Amino acid sequence: MNSKEFADRLRARESVVGYWVTMDAPVATERIARVGYDYVVLDGQHGLLGIRGLLDGLIAIEAGGTPTVGLVRVEANNATPIGRALDAGAAGVIVPLIDTAEDAAAAVRAARYPPSGIRSFGPTRAGLRVGPVPAESDAATVVLAMIETRQGLENVAAICATPGLDGIYVGPSDLCLAVGGRYPGDPEVAEAFDAAIELIARTAGEAGIAAGVHTPSGEVARRRLGEGYTFATVSSDLDHLQAAAAAHLAATGLR
Amino acid sequence: MNSKEFADRLRARESVVGYWVTMDAPVATERIARVGYDYVVLDGQHGLLGIRGLLDGLIAIEAGGTPTVGLVRVEANNATPIGRALDAGAAGVIVPLIDTAEDAAAAVRAARYPPSGIRSFGPTRAGLRVGPVPAESDAATVVLAMIETRQGLENVAAICATPGLDGIYVGPSDLCLAVGGRYPGDPEVAEAFDAAIELIARTAGEAGIAAGVHTPSGEVARRRLGEGYTFATVSSDLDHLQAAAAAHLAATGLR
Amino acid sequence: MNSKEFADRLRARESVVGYWVTMDAPVATERIARVGYDYVVLDGQHGLLGIRGLLDGLIAIEAGGTPTVGLVRVEANNATPIGRALDAGAAGVIVPLIDTAEDAAAAVRAARYPPSGIRSFGPTRAGLRVGPVPAESDAATVVLAMIETRQGLENVAAICATPGLDGIYVGPSDLCLAVGGRYPGDPEVAEAFDAAIELIARTAGEAGIAAGVHTPSGEVARRRLGEGYTFATVSSDLDHLQAAAAAHLAATGLR
Amino acid sequence: MNSKEFADRLRARESVVGYWVTMDAPVATERIARVGYDYVVLDGQHGLLGIRGLLDGLIAIEAGGTPTVGLVRVEANNATPIGRALDAGAAGVIVPLIDTAEDAAAAVRAARYPPSGIRSFGPTRAGLRVGPVPAESDAATVVLAMIETRQGLENVAAICATPGLDGIYVGPSDLCLAVGGRYPGDPEVAEAFDAAIELIARTAGEAGIAAGVHTPSGEVARRRLGEGYTFATVSSDLDHLQAAAAAHLAATGLR
Amino acid sequence: MNSKEFADRLRARESVVGYWVTMDAPVATERIARVGYDYVVLDGQHGLLGIRGLLDGLIAIEAGGTPTVGLVRVEANNATPIGRALDAGAAGVIVPLIDTAEDAAAAVRAARYPPSGIRSFGPTRAGLRVGPVPAESDAATVVLAMIETRQGLENVAAICATPGLDGIYVGPSDLCLAVGGRYPGDPEVAEAFDAAIELIARTAGEAGIAAGVHTPSGEVARRRLGEGYTFATVSSDLDHLQAAAAAHLAATGLR
Amino acid sequence: MNSKEFADRLRARESVVGYWVTMDAPVATERIARVGYDYVVLDGQHGLLGIRGLLDGLIAIEAGGTPTVGLVRVEANNATPIGRALDAGAAGVIVPLIDTAEDAAAAVRAARYPPSGIRSFGPTRAGLRVGPVPAESDAATVVLAMIETRQGLENVAAICATPGLDGIYVGPSDLCLAVGGRYPGDPEVAEAFDAAIELIARTAGEAGIAAGVHTPSGEVARRRLGEGYTFATVSSDLDHLQAAAAAHLAATGLR
Ligand SMILES: [Mg+2]
Ligand SMILES: [Mg+2]
Ligand SMILES: [Mg+2]
Ligand SMILES: [Mg+2]
Ligand SMILES: [Mg+2]
Ligand SMILES: [Mg+2]
Repeated sequence: MNSKEFADRLRARESVVGYWVTMDAPVATERIARVGYDYVVLDGQHGLLGIRGLLDGLIAIEAGGTPTVGLVRVEANNATPIGRALDAGAAGVIVPLIDTAEDAAAAVRAARYPPSGIRSFGPTRAGLRVGPVPAESDAATVVLAMIETRQGLENVAAICATPGLDGIYVGPSDLCLAVGGRYPGDPEVAEAFDAAIELIARTAGEAGIAAGVHTPSGEVARRRLGEGYTFATVSSDLDHLQAAAAAHLAATGLR
Repeated sequence: MNSKEFADRLRARESVVGYWVTMDAPVATERIARVGYDYVVLDGQHGLLGIRGLLDGLIAIEAGGTPTVGLVRVEANNATPIGRALDAGAAGVIVPLIDTAEDAAAAVRAARYPPSGIRSFGPTRAGLRVGPVPAESDAATVVLAMIETRQGLENVAAICATPGLDGIYVGPSDLCLAVGGRYPGDPEVAEAFDAAIELIARTAGEAGIAAGVHTPSGEVARRRLGEGYTFATVSSDLDHLQAAAAAHLAATGLR
Repeated sequence: MNSKEFADRLRARESVVGYWVTMDAPVATERIARVGYDYVVLDGQHGLLGIRGLLDGLIAIEAGGTPTVGLVRVEANNATPIGRALDAGAAGVIVPLIDTAEDAAAAVRAARYPPSGIRSFGPTRAGLRVGPVPAESDAATVVLAMIETRQGLENVAAICATPGLDGIYVGPSDLCLAVGGRYPGDPEVAEAFDAAIELIARTAGEAGIAAGVHTPSGEVARRRLGEGYTFATVSSDLDHLQAAAAAHLAATGLR
Repeated sequence: MNSKEFADRLRARESVVGYWVTMDAPVATERIARVGYDYVVLDGQHGLLGIRGLLDGLIAIEAGGTPTVGLVRVEANNATPIGRALDAGAAGVIVPLIDTAEDAAAAVRAARYPPSGIRSFGPTRAGLRVGPVPAESDAATVVLAMIETRQGLENVAAICATPGLDGIYVGPSDLCLAVGGRYPGDPEVAEAFDAAIELIARTAGEAGIAAGVHTPSGEVARRRLGEGYTFATVSSDLDHLQAAAAAHLAATGLR
Repeated sequence: MNSKEFADRLRARESVVGYWVTMDAPVATERIARVGYDYVVLDGQHGLLGIRGLLDGLIAIEAGGTPTVGLVRVEANNATPIGRALDAGAAGVIVPLIDTAEDAAAAVRAARYPPSGIRSFGPTRAGLRVGPVPAESDAATVVLAMIETRQGLENVAAICATPGLDGIYVGPSDLCLAVGGRYPGDPEVAEAFDAAIELIARTAGEAGIAAGVHTPSGEVARRRLGEGYTFATVSSDLDHLQAAAAAHLAATGLR
Repeated sequence: MNSKEFADRLRARESVVGYWVTMDAPVATERIARVGYDYVVLDGQHGLLGIRGLLDGLIAIEAGGTPTVGLVRVEANNATPIGRALDAGAAGVIVPLIDTAEDAAAAVRAARYPPSGIRSFGPTRAGLRVGPVPAESDAATVVLAMIETRQGLENVAAICATPGLDGIYVGPSDLCLAVGGRYPGDPEVAEAFDAAIELIARTAGEAGIAAGVHTPSGEVARRRLGEGYTFATVSSDLDHLQAAAAAHLAATGLR
């Protein structure tokens, strides 16, 4: 519905901000969508949602009644989950673990209708959004490649140059391990990590595509948006809910 | 498992604190249970959980591996939902809209095995917790009557005197409307509301039963525990998650 | 969202038309909502939907993005299912098997917040639609009483005079049995049935409330709307789908 | 499908035997149905199935492809769950906790179409089995009243005389508590219990209706069928599965 | 159950006709199965069904009680979804996007037990249908390769010659794009499309295997069956339901 | 929770015993976990569980409150289902159809965090069990390779030598077909089958890794544990339940 407008803004490298959902709880996802983020991502890789959870989540996002669009982080760089997420109504996909330009090109092909891609026709839920010409709906569908492996980092320029790719998306936890960190946020590799963060944003900027990043909070999102990133996602529902429950428990003074 | 110990503490009017769940999201409920509250309540009345959601939630609470017990706020003061919640493994029930001592007695009877009550035998999931003698499991099952109507407030002393009732539980939103408020928290009836809050805690104390109250936060819970209440629930998952998402969005500086 | 506007139109006895859903299939319900009916009813009595199905269906109707509102035909005239349907986001309830004015008054009370009713506060999903004052949301919530029993037919005038009742709704199958038919549509009681249909519409009109009727098709709906009825529902998804499948099979020429 | 034949056999007091399902696991229920019992009961009272579980279970029983029919032990003696179970395709209902002839008459009325009963028309899933005349389907629908309370035992003759009641069904666990047992199978009340068992079977026999009983095993079922009972159910899936798992563990020799 | 007979008829190139299901709604699928089609296909690629939806749909088809068999259009040409569909009870698979004879051979291998294939043993739900010798069940399992890509069209003769392949199946929407159409049904490529349709049917006929085609209606199915196709599927539940709802709305005269 | 201890025992080639679950029925899985097996396997390949079923099953195993750990037999040797099972809380994976040492190495890599493997970080449900350093959790995660194909049998020594592999697991049904059996248990290949069984256990022993085997009963498990196997799984819930139902039916004497 708003997916074309969202895609336009993302491609124009306007600042957009999203929220990351890892649980199969449509009523929660609908509430989050009503908060007013530009997009909500349903995590099909590390999230605890199956096909039905992705579908219900995408419906819930639209039920929110805001312009918020639903994206899916697919479980793998594979045409099947990419096609299913889009047929279920996602406005775009975040594809994990992109190592090479070939990987990125495969992701793009899977998400585009012929003649530019190989997406099979059958937009069962998305159908009403797609006009008579399937290929025209490519304009309303974003494809984002995750940079989070050593190889992906080395090949970031080639990946960013992939025709049809709308943006890259940094997975900081995996990226930190990739640069030698023992755990996400390991201070021993802070320099290498920060250099990678900077390099990726710069490279995307030079390629003229969107530069996105995963963050744990609105504060970090704000910082990244000031460091060359054009979109940032705040993550995640389960973590924030657990943190809230813990904070309230502490506030009772009984623990 | 820990339900006897929990019941003992609640009946001894020790301070205990819980969290209120309104959504059918077992992975979230499991996380909340791991935080360490004494109890987690699954809301079968205003919450968005069916029978399957209550069951999955009770399983998730035990999966948390902490001593936290699961309670159910049943959809109505009716032997059927009370029995089903207990058979599914709840350590107790919070029964809404109790107007009279007769109402409270009916709730107690529904939750107790013969000879003191009429609970039908069939603890399908709870079974392993109940020893060979069903009536002995009554000691591990708490029954809490909600005071939240004008009639209930008028009859609070009689309700508190109901044999077998373990405690009362204040529903502040309905109670505020009951004392003439136009909306929950209406300052125009603050005096009457505060008097009711005080009266209920005092009456329960005089009857020697637990006095519980629903609250929106750990801070309010702490305050109520200092005002004569012996247990307080922080509410709720959906509200706290929405608030967190909104706060993170504000922190991005983009809205 | 559009529930106030819908309620206003229904109460003004404008002609409105709806569709009747009996299955737990949110993607189908969303498609139907997009077709553009004024309302879609989820059948909680004879339909094959549990609590989760009603909730998912109401979300799907809003995801349709049209002004279509979702109603629930509750399983019984009981405050619990009425409250749960409204808390889940229904814009109103159709209450079956109303025999007397007292029945109708109980249904109205269950759906209205204090001071006019006894609806308990906890609009978990509907919350965002309700303003700060719960009672104000009564204006956006319709209550419709089914006339489908012999007693209900005899008491139709008294039922229509129930304060706060927004309309009546004819269940023709049960009504036909009630007037002595051996089966729905039994021609042997056609005269009595037609007289009842006419009487009910006229009585509602005299009372100034909406007059609704269940129909099997758009054609019958059109006819009823020309006979004094102000709203009509076309029923149902399962029947129409089965009929379509059978018609296509016949058209293959292989059967 | 086979429900008329089953009802005929049950009413003729032929020996029939069934199996008791307490879990929401359609693939297991389908397997059990294929084993060849005359009926399979889905337990809506103490079982862990919601509306969707009952529906899926009834579908699974028919998928078994045997003449086995599906019954539902409803959650309470209430027209709503009775109607919903039958609309979902149950061939009959077992109604718990019948205390009086009035209770039994209410159960019968809820399960019969007019003119003999008050069942509302809307056989959404059962529809294809019901001929054009709803009341004719009563012949294919059995209503069984549980005798398991002290009052029910005292009133057993009056209950058995209820017009339209097809049989009674003994709930031994509750019955044992009702005659003063401290737990199901309490040897201290064995005499009273055995007398009750004998009395109920004899009374049903004198009334010419079916006499059924709940049992833990085929062996006990066989014994009861030799003691005047005409149908017996072996219970239950969860218990038998747990027992099998425990027996296999013991057989490993590692515990 | 009837899968051997169905496979025999399909392989003998008798005319058979099916219906296409895209939604997770077992009660609807059961109704469709009762209509009397030879087969019903559950769409695991573009349909909105996960693993549980496929399983419930296959159970529902058997519950229909007709000889109708259930097939699954798998999400991809991959041994995992092929095996899972068959283990869940599908009588055969329709495999999308077959480009080459090697693709077709891989699909066949995945669906056949050793020694002719590599299907892993574990027919968890299908088990009772398979006799003691797994390989014998291959005779009751059909494998159908979709021709819908440019490459597939070019290789249609080689694909049809794949040993063990039971038939091909045309996906007209993708095929139309493959021959250069801008959208399904694009009149500008009608000639090329019609030639492809003709070529595929003829090639399958020459190879002696079944020739199937996807159609939007019984009328088109009838036409294709007169043009050399031996089986045709009418599609789909969601589209037909939406069309029916729209037609009824139009018939009300209010839109 | 207990996964490290379990992994230590398994790696030390202590005798451990498990149970095999093929159905999506958390309450049954919880009961089985309470019986006291060392591990329970959820079958994601031939079992009838989707992503949600695996997740609910893993939660249910922990709710059992025993030291029993949950494993998943993944649907294929693919990093995506391996990662998802572990993120959902599995203490390890059984990977089917391992043909070569390369296959085994890929399975190991998919289950290990960097630097030894490529598991992507996002332990959404498992998170609390993993300490700050992801790679340390590898010590609590077992990877087991199934030997069940001709190739796998030929390469068993190389497979057992795979660094990081914790054990092998024999799938006797597929293995029997692989050695030329016409059906599982075919006596005509008993000699070859027994030799394979012996060879696999011996090879694993020589490699110092755990040797596991699938069995139909505790008796066979005991036998295999005396023949060089260090762990054995009893299979399965659906089979044992069906057998129990059949045995009880036979015991009634009515069939
Ligand atoms: Mg990552
Ligand atoms: Mg309240
Ligand atoms: Mg009716
Ligand atoms: Mg009982
Ligand atoms: Mg296609
Ligand atoms: Mg195998």
